[in-house]
Amino acid sequence: MPPAHARAVTKRIELALLPAEAAGIEADCFIVVDLLRATTTIATLLGAGAGAVTVASELGAARALAAHRGALLYGEVGGLPPEGFDGGNSPVEARDAPVAGREVVLYTTNGTRALCALATRGAVATGALANASAVARFAASHERVCVVCAGEARGMRFALEDFAAAGGIIRRLVALAPGAEMGDAAGLAIETARYDDWLRAGLPQQTAASARLIAGSEHGQALARLGIAADVSFCVEEDTTGAVPLVMECGDGWATLRAWRPGG
Amino acid sequence: MPPAHARAVTKRIELALLPAEAAGIEADCFIVVDLLRATTTIATLLGAGAGAVTVASELGAARALAAHRGALLYGEVGGLPPEGFDGGNSPVEARDAPVAGREVVLYTTNGTRALCALATRGAVATGALANASAVARFAASHERVCVVCAGEARGMRFALEDFAAAGGIIRRLVALAPGAEMGDAAGLAIETARYDDWLRAGLPQQTAASARLIAGSEHGQALARLGIAADVSFCVEEDTTGAVPLVMECGDGWATLRAWRPGG
Repeated sequence: MPPAHARAVTKRIELALLPAEAAGIEADCFIVVDLLRATTTIATLLGAGAGAVTVASELGAARALAAHRGALLYGEVGGLPPEGFDGGNSPVEARDAPVAGREVVLYTTNGTRALCALATRGAVATGALANASAVARFAASHERVCVVCAGEARGMRFALEDFAAAGGIIRRLVALAPGAEMGDAAGLAIETARYDDWLRAGLPQQTAASARLIAGSEHGQALARLGIAADVSFCVEEDTTGAVPLVMECGDGWATLRAWRPGG
Repeated sequence: MPPAHARAVTKRIELALLPAEAAGIEADCFIVVDLLRATTTIATLLGAGAGAVTVASELGAARALAAHRGALLYGEVGGLPPEGFDGGNSPVEARDAPVAGREVVLYTTNGTRALCALATRGAVATGALANASAVARFAASHERVCVVCAGEARGMRFALEDFAAAGGIIRRLVALAPGAEMGDAAGLAIETARYDDWLRAGLPQQTAASARLIAGSEHGQALARLGIAADVSFCVEEDTTGAVPLVMECGDGWATLRAWRPGG
């Protein structure tokens, strides 16, 4: 078997800072990042053995899909699971959840729309720091890769934590495809990652820049105020799973993701 | 007279990475940055004594406005001034241009729309590195400041050079109003500026990060290929003028800016 980098075919790497920016970017592979906490939870659920994760953007549709498919129902309203749910939108909870072989419906308002819009244009995976290396390997098998920050406020506002995680994915992809051209925002993500390297190398007592950016983000601080800082800490951990969630099917307000099988 | 920082009333600083993001940000002062080259040229023209600069987004309207007002006509198509124009969209040219007491109409496709949309919501100034300190002092007299990256492709794509210049303005504003809250993107700009400080302090032989980011941006490289790298170098220079261009009047596809007079 050849080394992983021998398969890298990526010629261009872009980063969309908001979902709307992705509309103007040509790519055959999109990696959507909603770090706190949807895409970390999705990767962790598939890593824990879930057969599929269906994200749904409306509460009623999430309940109906779960009932119809005999799926577990996870999600949050105001940071906590609603009445009758099997669990929250918590990656810490997802890590140890009894999901092996089950489908999970995950209710999350952000990002579902973006997943389905992009799925008409190319392969769509979700990314986080939890699966950064695995997602970079998947992306490296595509010529034009666009990482997409899902953002806040239904994609209208930039979210620093998504940018920091996108930088973690892009730095790994650049290591696999060092000759790839980069767009402006991807270049900025690399620049930030360099600063991160400097902090890691020169000031080992300090927290890495990406962890500081994520913990200091407005969403990270809001989660800490809700008492779920443990989830934020988990979302900062890198490569806790090798699962690459791929969008397989889309409907009105929902998308089903399954783990990518290399060569399969 | 009290020191400048005594007058700072800024409580919150935001950065919109694309014009569309500004729509969701509440502010009483907007600073629009289109570094290469519109907002550098505007600041330089007012700094050189122009009585007003009217930006116009359509070529026909620019010609008609200039004729109607007896104004000089500057601007570019594909980086160069069209037939019959008095000059280009070049800050190097603007610095020495015979504009004292004259009005200049500047034809520029990007940003005009954003200026007029924002002018209905608060004070609107244009910013660049050329007038970064002056613009920061102006911004410090407002409670909620939003710096707006004008971007590329009529505002659909992020432009790294606008972000780098926005960071230069925000770091100065934070120095004047150190207690102000910051949104996520403003925090990222400060993070990048810290890296910049590190490069300046620790590696004096290297170019500062902001200059590298700007010269390495896709637009910066395109201008260099057009043979106008001198303009890019000029746009990286900080505080070459104290002029703060303020939007005073808006029409369909045009906006007139005049220099802010502190206390006047």
